[in-house]
Parts: sequence; structure tokens; C-alpha cells
Amino acid sequence: MESIPYLALISALAALALASYFFTTVKAAPAGNDRMVFLMTEIQKGAKAFLRQEYTWVSFFVIAMVILLAIVIAPLASVAYIIGAILSASAGYIGMTVATMANARTTEAAKEGPAKALPVAYRGGAVMGFSVAGLALLGLMFVYLLFVTWLEVDDAFEIVTAYGLGASSIALFSRVGGGIYTKAADVGADLVGKVEAGIPEDDPRNPATIADNVGDNVGDVAGMGADLFESYAGSIIAPVALTAFAVGATATEATLTDFDGVNVLGQLMFPMAIALVGMVASILGSFLVKGGDSTDSKALSHALHRGTNVAMGLTIIGTIGMSYWIFDSATGNPIGLAISVIGGLIVGWALGKTAEFYTSDHFAPVKKIAAQSETGPATTVLSGISAGMVSVAASVILVLAGIGIAYWGGEETLGNGIYGIAVAAIGMLATTGAVVSVDAYGPIADNAGGIAEMAELDPSVREVTDALDSLGNTTAAIAKGFAVGSAALTALALFKSFELAVQQAGGSLTLNVGEVDVFIGLFLGAGLPFLFAALTIDAVGRAATAMIEEVRRQFREVPGLREGKEGVTPDSARCVAISTEASLKEMIIPGSLAVVVPLVVGFIDIDALGGLLAGALVTGFALAIFMANAGGAWDNAKKYIEAGAHGGKGSDPHKAAVVGDTVGDPFKDTSGPAMNILLKVMTIVSLVFASAFV
Amino acid sequence: MESIPYLALISALAALALASYFFTTVKAAPAGNDRMVFLMTEIQKGAKAFLRQEYTWVSFFVIAMVILLAIVIAPLASVAYIIGAILSASAGYIGMTVATMANARTTEAAKEGPAKALPVAYRGGAVMGFSVAGLALLGLMFVYLLFVTWLEVDDAFEIVTAYGLGASSIALFSRVGGGIYTKAADVGADLVGKVEAGIPEDDPRNPATIADNVGDNVGDVAGMGADLFESYAGSIIAPVALTAFAVGATATEATLTDFDGVNVLGQLMFPMAIALVGMVASILGSFLVKGGDSTDSKALSHALHRGTNVAMGLTIIGTIGMSYWIFDSATGNPIGLAISVIGGLIVGWALGKTAEFYTSDHFAPVKKIAAQSETGPATTVLSGISAGMVSVAASVILVLAGIGIAYWGGEETLGNGIYGIAVAAIGMLATTGAVVSVDAYGPIADNAGGIAEMAELDPSVREVTDALDSLGNTTAAIAKGFAVGSAALTALALFKSFELAVQQAGGSLTLNVGEVDVFIGLFLGAGLPFLFAALTIDAVGRAATAMIEEVRRQFREVPGLREGKEGVTPDSARCVAISTEASLKEMIIPGSLAVVVPLVVGFIDIDALGGLLAGALVTGFALAIFMANAGGAWDNAKKYIEAGAHGGKGSDPHKAAVVGDTVGDPFKDTSGPAMNILLKVMTIVSLVFASAFV
Repeated sequence: MESIPYLALISALAALALASYFFTTVKAAPAGNDRMVFLMTEIQKGAKAFLRQEYTWVSFFVIAMVILLAIVIAPLASVAYIIGAILSASAGYIGMTVATMANARTTEAAKEGPAKALPVAYRGGAVMGFSVAGLALLGLMFVYLLFVTWLEVDDAFEIVTAYGLGASSIALFSRVGGGIYTKAADVGADLVGKVEAGIPEDDPRNPATIADNVGDNVGDVAGMGADLFESYAGSIIAPVALTAFAVGATATEATLTDFDGVNVLGQLMFPMAIALVGMVASILGSFLVKGGDSTDSKALSHALHRGTNVAMGLTIIGTIGMSYWIFDSATGNPIGLAISVIGGLIVGWALGKTAEFYTSDHFAPVKKIAAQSETGPATTVLSGISAGMVSVAASVILVLAGIGIAYWGGEETLGNGIYGIAVAAIGMLATTGAVVSVDAYGPIADNAGGIAEMAELDPSVREVTDALDSLGNTTAAIAKGFAVGSAALTALALFKSFELAVQQAGGSLTLNVGEVDVFIGLFLGAGLPFLFAALTIDAVGRAATAMIEEVRRQFREVPGLREGKEGVTPDSARCVAISTEASLKEMIIPGSLAVVVPLVVGFIDIDALGGLLAGALVTGFALAIFMANAGGAWDNAKKYIEAGAHGGKGSDPHKAAVVGDTVGDPFKDTSGPAMNILLKVMTIVSLVFASAFV
Repeated sequence: MESIPYLALISALAALALASYFFTTVKAAPAGNDRMVFLMTEIQKGAKAFLRQEYTWVSFFVIAMVILLAIVIAPLASVAYIIGAILSASAGYIGMTVATMANARTTEAAKEGPAKALPVAYRGGAVMGFSVAGLALLGLMFVYLLFVTWLEVDDAFEIVTAYGLGASSIALFSRVGGGIYTKAADVGADLVGKVEAGIPEDDPRNPATIADNVGDNVGDVAGMGADLFESYAGSIIAPVALTAFAVGATATEATLTDFDGVNVLGQLMFPMAIALVGMVASILGSFLVKGGDSTDSKALSHALHRGTNVAMGLTIIGTIGMSYWIFDSATGNPIGLAISVIGGLIVGWALGKTAEFYTSDHFAPVKKIAAQSETGPATTVLSGISAGMVSVAASVILVLAGIGIAYWGGEETLGNGIYGIAVAAIGMLATTGAVVSVDAYGPIADNAGGIAEMAELDPSVREVTDALDSLGNTTAAIAKGFAVGSAALTALALFKSFELAVQQAGGSLTLNVGEVDVFIGLFLGAGLPFLFAALTIDAVGRAATAMIEEVRRQFREVPGLREGKEGVTPDSARCVAISTEASLKEMIIPGSLAVVVPLVVGFIDIDALGGLLAGALVTGFALAIFMANAGGAWDNAKKYIEAGAHGGKGSDPHKAAVVGDTVGDPFKDTSGPAMNILLKVMTIVSLVFASAFV
């Protein structure tokens, strides 16, 4: 059983090898004509410039944390922290590099039809997917083996947790910074280009078009990658930390073999075993995604999703096997923990489907929003808010069902329900490699369409890329469900680990909300996500204003630009620079909040910190779901109208729907996704610093 | 000391006598010409018809609760419940009757200037104010004396709490039903009248104008009255219940005299003593509100607010005196609890000022929203959402400061911090008589303006009523702060009482959020306010749609109506009937939610119920503040633009601001205010049924 971390490490290396292989095949594909290469290079340059600057800014934060960890916790914790941060940043950088290479290549392949273009876009996404999963698992297993197995240092599990904190820090800033960038560019491009100048989306005359396409990559690719890196690593760390701190909190001397009749080693190995199974399954699945000769959209969709479906199926089977093998000697039935994991997977899937129900134009909520656009923007906004809020109630009930099942499973096998909850999150994320591959495929197909438009290719090419783009949506919804659901479960498990870590450090944590300090913390925690949402919404507003002014200036001052005179090109680089600078400046305060608040509260009153985490978790989860789903619903209501309903494009209902969509933009792409990481960063900061608070 | 309840009872009777006296003077004032009397009678008829129907519908709910209480708790609890419900309903009915009498009389007096009109409007409001405070205190003291002092029945304090539950039930339905009504009528009148038909506000041609004016009365007067009745009674009940259940939970035999060295009788009497002091101070203050001869707005404002300011000043002095007298023999310093009460008052005031900062056009947030309207409705909506969310953070910090101070005070005097929190809420509400007088003055002045418009009086009359209308705003903001702040403190104290009541009943309540069932409850509780908000927003939408269709139909089918042909009048009664029916139908589900959910959860798992209450309290508080302040900010941004900024009325920024205002309407007048009562109803239901759950 002790070989599991080594096997997991090897599977991570295999994933990275696969990513390199896909990288080679993508690179080998033709990138098209000069114009396309130029556009691709511009997008790539912009995206890389953003990431480089972002990482430069974030490095100050990372250095501050490294010093703090070294002084307050242990120098080795700084090492783990910095490994987590660097690997997470690298995964984002690699994924984005390939995504911005794959876009023009997908466009070029789309000239020969979807069957040729699909594998290019998929493999571009798969580099991202397997880099994220591979690097996250590689780093985690390395840190685990190094500090726990080989060096056997003191507080080894705090050090392992610091690895997660490193990943979370990068994820938070990537999500916030990338989210602000992408929306500022999007709003700037749309408002001045489409609304004021009356030119179509992705038009080469619009100075913000390149920035908009850069935004898709830094937000949806790099930001999403860092997010999933953090979620994936966190979901494995949570049950490991929970187990280790439970031993530390109750045993006089920590033992990693049998303890209290419970197989501690098994509990430590099980999460890694599922990660191993999921990684192998994802690698096998990825080979099944082939374009084939069919151009039928159903067949294409089937081809794209075959990889994920096979990976999930294999993971379920593997989980049952691992459960019986590892918990063979447990007092309870090993099937319990397998059900926890599978239950988590199903709840994650159901969360994604719920999000889809509330945000897809195939169902009643979006149709209702579209219908409400007949009576103007106010009713459009209100019906979206209401749909988002109802989706909160539905999602909360699903998560609670997941918690209940997972708890039951943990009790069944080990008499430890919380452990069941902790491993349920891995169920959702074990196939991260496969899921992120398809998730990153989306922006590549989207960008490919943008390049087709900007390079003024034949409209048939755009039709192919649009068809490819729409294929990714179902998986994107499910990936979102996984991210959200696992955030709730992981945060809960980390929260419980925090409680145990405090006990292990010789302190005691009262989490009784009947106590005033806990209640004050709870209250503060409930208010915090509102402040965070407000800060990020305002940040998008300010960054977008800077962008709008620059686009307006160029249209005003560059003669012939608006008219599309031959040889007149916009200064896209300036728009990219403005969006970069504005979003990075705006990222600082909301990003720091997540780290500073728990530290300050924790050093004042640790019980209040417990309340704060609980309050922030439940309220933040609700707010995140609300913002994501309301935003998604408005977006698709607009698209539904654009497809011809309620008067179609240019009608008054369409204008009302555009208002809803614009309100929803920072909701769904900035505040909502960042909120999930906020919750985990706050919890993991508390967990790492638990001994210092005591 | 035992005489305090009797003295409080007498002070309540004095308040009612004062209300009768004011009623006579209002009635004696001339109501103006036939047209004005007709309009007044229409509004009154509509409002009374609504209330009668509302009470009919609610009576089914009340009967169900009476039966449930009689079976599950005690038949006498049903008696207390029904007394609370009837008195609360009566206070609303009386206040609204007088408000709808005072409106035309204020208009008539306004012909002679503001100095004549002010006392009429104030006294109309004061009937409401002193009816609410008088009936609430009268009923409570009667129930207390009857069951605790005279009959000395078993579970006397559960029965007293049931009185509060009766009041809360009525308040919840009044706020929800009235809130839906007022916004449906408002939106219907505005959207078809102002936007589609292009006729001004309060125009007699608009069929929904009467319904709109009725809405002001059923929402802002009757709904607000029932709300304050509930808050006031609840703030006194909370520390009484806390004390009684603390005795019951720890002593083998309940004793109301000395217990554990703490003066139990003093703790029971202190809240009533502050209520007594506040009532006497309010009565004295009310005589100081006189019009004088000046027409200067500053002098008028001073005249209007003199009553409240004097009442508060006297209450502070009286509180210090009572504290020293009652807690003379306490181990700690009696000043502690006086500081708790005064701290509560100051925090309530500061909450009101915070709300004012975020919603008044004198300050940056509203000015920013108005500026954002330059870039369209989407940025207007986003900046309002962000302002509302930031105000949550500010308000949370204030409430926490209040909790901290009050806790310190309770510890200082009695070594019982929670008791300090419980009495802090009374600090805010002791002067309910005076505060509600000015609060109810607002809609009367508003309605007076409507009548001046509809009766086509000289514009100078409208100017006077507008001047009067604006005077009430400051107090309205502070009253709102009191309502919100006291809701948080009262709910917290009731929550703690619930814990004690469970212990008294022999059960045990685990409120450790580290336990899974508590955490599940916490999560569910955090989701509930979102569902409640969605339900009420949707309800307003549906009711408004019914109204819009009727107004459109009349404009379409009644020849000459839109053109204002002589002798053609709209069928206002039909609009009133439609708004009434729609809002009452829509009130059922959200209203029942508040009672059914805690009962169901409580009978399944009482720890989960504890978590649910805590989660709902913190999230609901945040959501209530967000919705109230965002709504208020949009409203005033629109008014700011109408006053000439950013292009003024009819400009594009104005249209954008109107969108914000319409989004905010159900936020600030339906969902937001109802949320506060939701929290208290849920807590008080749990408290009353605590023994049954065990």
C-alpha cells in the first residue's frame, strides 16, 4: 500500500508525457496564412505579457507569504508553498501557451471540416488538462514523499498543506486578475465596438478585439487552469490532512500505522489511490477522442465526450476496487467509502445539470428571462436575479444530499463520516485531466472563430468553428458543477481539519455558534463574500472604463479606422496593455482580503475565526452559485433572443437582454468563480497557521 | 420592583389615550372639497378592503397555528398567540384608517402653508405610532401579568413568547402581502402610465393611481406598523425569555427571585422598565411637535424631530436611573447594562446613518450610481448592487460593535453578556411610539401630495406637501436602522433563548458547526433567504403583470380615457381589486415557508435547526441590508437625476436610472423588509416549539 504515492507520482509523469506528446502534434499542425499567424501571435503575446506581469505582481505576495511561513510555521513550509505556487503558475502558463497556439491551427484545420479541426482543438485543451492534473499530482506526491516518507520531518502534514496554500494563492489571483481582465476587455470591445461604432463582434477594426481574445485565454484558460489545479490538489490534501490531524489531535505520539483500530495508513493512501485511478483512466480516455470521418454534430459531440465518459466509468470501477483493497481490514463495509466517492461524483454531475437547467435556453428559467425582456431591462434583470437565487436553493439541497451520502459512507466503512465527505470531493476531481481537456477546448474553439472572423476567412470556416464551440458547453457545465461542489466539500473537510489542527497544537476550538465570539465570527464571515463581490464588480467597472476610453480615443483620433480604410490598423497592443495594467492593479485588494482577514481574526480570537470560516463558507457558496447562474442565465437569454426569439437581434427585447448580459458578465466570470477559491484560501490559510494562532 | 409591569401597562393605556386624542383632532380637521373627499374615500376603501381580505386569508393560518399550539404546546399558548395576532392586526388597521383620513386633511391644511399642515400629518402618524406601541405593550404586559403573576401557570414564559409569535405572524404576512401590493401597483401605475401613455405620476386618468396610493398605505403604514409592533414586542420578550429559560435550564425548580446570586426578578423587570421609560418619554415628546409660525424648512424639520429627540434623550437618562435602581444589588456595576441599552440605541442610529450614506443623494455612492447611468442601465444596476453589497460589510461591522458593547455591558453588571445583547435591542425600540409617529407621517405627506395632484389643486399646494414629505426622510432612515439592528440583536437573543429552552425541556442542543447536522442546518439556513428573496421578487413580478394588463386594457377599451376627456373616469376599483387578489395569493408560499421550515427541520433534528437559524440569521441579515440599501440607492439616484443632474428627466441617463429604480423596487419594499421578520419568525417559532421538538 505504501507504493501508492510512487505509483501516483508515475501516473503524474505519464500525464505530463502525454501533454508533451499532444503539444508536439498541435505544434506540427499548420497555422494558416500570414494574417492568421499574425493574429495568433498577437493574442499569444498579449496573453503571455499579461501572465508574466501577473506573476511578477503576485511574486511579491508569494515572497511575503514565504517569509511569513518561514518565520511563523517552518522554513520547510515555505518550500512546499513555493513549489505549489510555481507549479500552479507553470500549469497556467503552459496551458495558455498551447491554447494560443492551437487557436489558429484549429481555424486552419476547420477549412477541411469539423472532423479535422476537433482533434486539434481537443489536443490543445488536453495539453492544458494533463499539465494541470499532472503537475498538481506530481508536486503533491513529491512534497508528500519528501517530507512525510523520506525526511519524516516534524509537522510534515502542515508542510503538505502549505503546498495547497501555494496553489490556492496563485488560483485566487489568477481568477480575480484574469476575471477582471477578460470582462474589462469584453465590455470595452462590445460597448464601443458593437453598440457605439456599430461594427460586428471580433471585427479587426476594433482596437479591443485582440484584448478580448487575450481575455478568453487569461480568464477561461489560465484562470480556470489555476483554479482546477488548486481544487484538485486541495481535494486530495483535505482527507490526508484530516486524517493526519485527527491522529495528531488525539494520539500522544503521531503514528501512521494502526491507531484506535482504524487503519490510518489506508486513510492516507485512499485519496491518492483514487487520484491514481482517475489519472490512469483520464489518460486512457484521452486516446479515444478522435475526429473520425463523420461531420454530424451528434457524432462529433460523442467523439469529444467519449474520453471523459470512459475516464469517469473507469474511475468508478477503480474506486470500488481500491476501496475493497485498502479498507479490507476496516471494521465496516469497504463499499461505504466507494459510495462516498461515487456519490460525490454524481452530486457534482447533478450540480452541473442544475446549473445547466437554470442557464441553458432549452429550459424554462432562461425562456422566462427572455420573455421578461419584452417588458424592458428592469424585468430582465429581476427575473435573472430571481432565477439565480432559486438555483441557490436547489444547489444547496444537492450539496447537502452529497454531504449526507458521503457522511454515511464514511460512517459505514470507518465510523468516520467527515472522512467520507473529504473523499467525496476527489470523486468529482479525479478525472481532472479529462475534464479540463474538454473545458480548455472551449476557449480554443471560441478563439478559432475569432481568428476566422478577424482574418476575414470564408464564412463556412466560422460555421465549423461555431459548431465546435457549441460542443464543449455540456462538459463546461459539468466541470463547473465539479468545481463548485468540490469547493464546498473540500472547504468543509479543511474546516474540520482546522479544528483538529488547533487541537493538535494544544489549543481548543469552540465552534458553538451560541458563543458570542463564534457568532461574531459567523456574522463577519457572512458579510465578507458580499464585500468581496462588491470589490470585484467595482474592479471590473473601473477596468472596463479605462478600456472604453482607450477604444473611443482610437476611433476618434485614428483617421480611417472606423471606416476600415485599407492599411489602417488599430493599436491593439495599447488596449492589451491597458487591460493588463488595470486588472492587475484591481486584483490586489480583493486578493489580499482572503489572506489578511483570517490571519488577523485568527491571531485575535481563534473561535471567531472558526465562526468566520463557517459563515463565509455557507454564504459565499450561496452567493457564488447565485452570481454564476444568474450571469449564465442572462447570457443565454440574450443568445436565445439573438437566435430569433422575441424579435431577434436589434429588437427592444434584445437590447433589454444585452443589459442583463452585461450585468451578468462580472457575476459569472469574475466574482462568482473567484468566490469558490476565496473560501478555500481562507480555510487553508487558517489550517496552515492553526498552530501559530494557538 | 414588582410594580413595573403594572406601570408599563398604565403607560400603554396612556399611549392609547393619546392616540385617541390625536385621532379626534385629526378627524376634526377639514378634509377639503368633494373631489378630495372622494379620492380620500377611494384610497381608504381600497386600503380597508385589502386589509380585511388580508386578515381573512391570514386568519386561516392563525387558526392552524392556534390548533397546533393548543395540541403541541398548551391551550393557553394559543390564547396568547391569538391576543398577539389580533392586537398587531388592530394596530395596523387603526393606523391605516387614520393615515387614510389624514392625507386629504393634510392637503387641505397645506393650502395655508406647511406650518398648518405639519401637525395634521404628524398627528395622523402619531395615532399609528402610539397605537402600535400602546397595543403591543398593553397586550404583552397583560399576558405577562395574567400568566406569570396572577395565574402562575406552568410554562408561563413559553406562553408569553407565543404572544410574540402571534405578532410576528401578522407582521410577516403584512410585510409580504403589503410589500407585494405596493410594488405591483407602483410598477403598474408607472410602467403603463408614465412610460407607455406618457402621463405624469398621480394623474387622475391613470386607473392604477388609486391603487398606487392604496399601496403606500398598506405597505408603508399597515405593513410597517405590524413590523414595528412585532419588533417592539419581540425586543422586550427576548431578554425576558432569555432570563426565564436560563433559570429553567439550570435550576431544578424555577425560581423567579434570587438564583445563583443573580437577581432574576431584576432581569425580568429591567426590559419592561426601559419600555416604560421609553413610552413615557415618547408621550412627553409628542407634545413638543408643533407647527409654529415659521415656514422655513429647517425650522419645520426641527419641529418634527423635536419629539423623537426629546424622547430619546429622556429614555437614555431614564435607562441609567432604572439600571442603578434595579441592579443596585448586582455584583457588578449597574452602569454596564445601561451602556448596553444606550450602545444599542447608538448602533441603531449609526445603522440608520449608514443606510442614509449609501442611499442618499448627498453622498458619494448614490452620486456614483447616477454617474454610471451615463453608460446605460447595466452599469447603473451593477453600481447599485456593488453599493448595496459594500453597505452590508459596513452594517455588519456596526452590528458586531453593538453586540460587543452590549455583551461587555451585560458582563459588567451581571456577568451575563447575552442578556446585555438582548436588552440592547430595547434601546433602539423603547421610543417606538415617537419613532413610528414620524415614520407614518411620511406616507401621509406623500399621499397628501398625490391627492393634491389628482384633485388638480394649485401647484403651490403640491410644493408644500413635497416639502413636508422630504422632512420625514431622516427619521425614516433611522427608524429603518432601528428595525434592522434590533432584528439582528433580538434574533440573536431569541436564538440563545431557544438553546436554553431546549435544555429546560430536558434536551440538549449542539450548536457546534463542526458537527455535520449543525453544518447541514447552517448551509440550509444560508440558502433559505435566497429562496425567500426569489419568491417575493417573482411574486411582485407576477402581481405587477396582472396590474399592467388591466391598466393597458382600460386605456385600450375605455374611449377618451387616455386623452382625459371630460367625465371619463378610470375603473380604479378594479385595479385595486386585482392588486389585492394578486398580492394575497402570492403572499401564501413565502409567508408559510418561515413557519413550516423550522417546524419540519426541528422535528427531524434539533441541532440542524440550531444551525439553520444561525445560517439564516447571518445570511438573511446580509441579504436584507443589501436589498434595502441597493434599492434605496437606485431610487435616490433616479431622483437625483430628476432634480437635474446628468441631463435630468427624460435623458438617457434618466432612463437608465429608472431601470435601476425598478429593479430596486421589490428589493427595498418587499424582499428586504420582509427578510428581517422572516428571521425573527423562524427563531420565535423554534423557541415556542422547543419543548415539542425535544
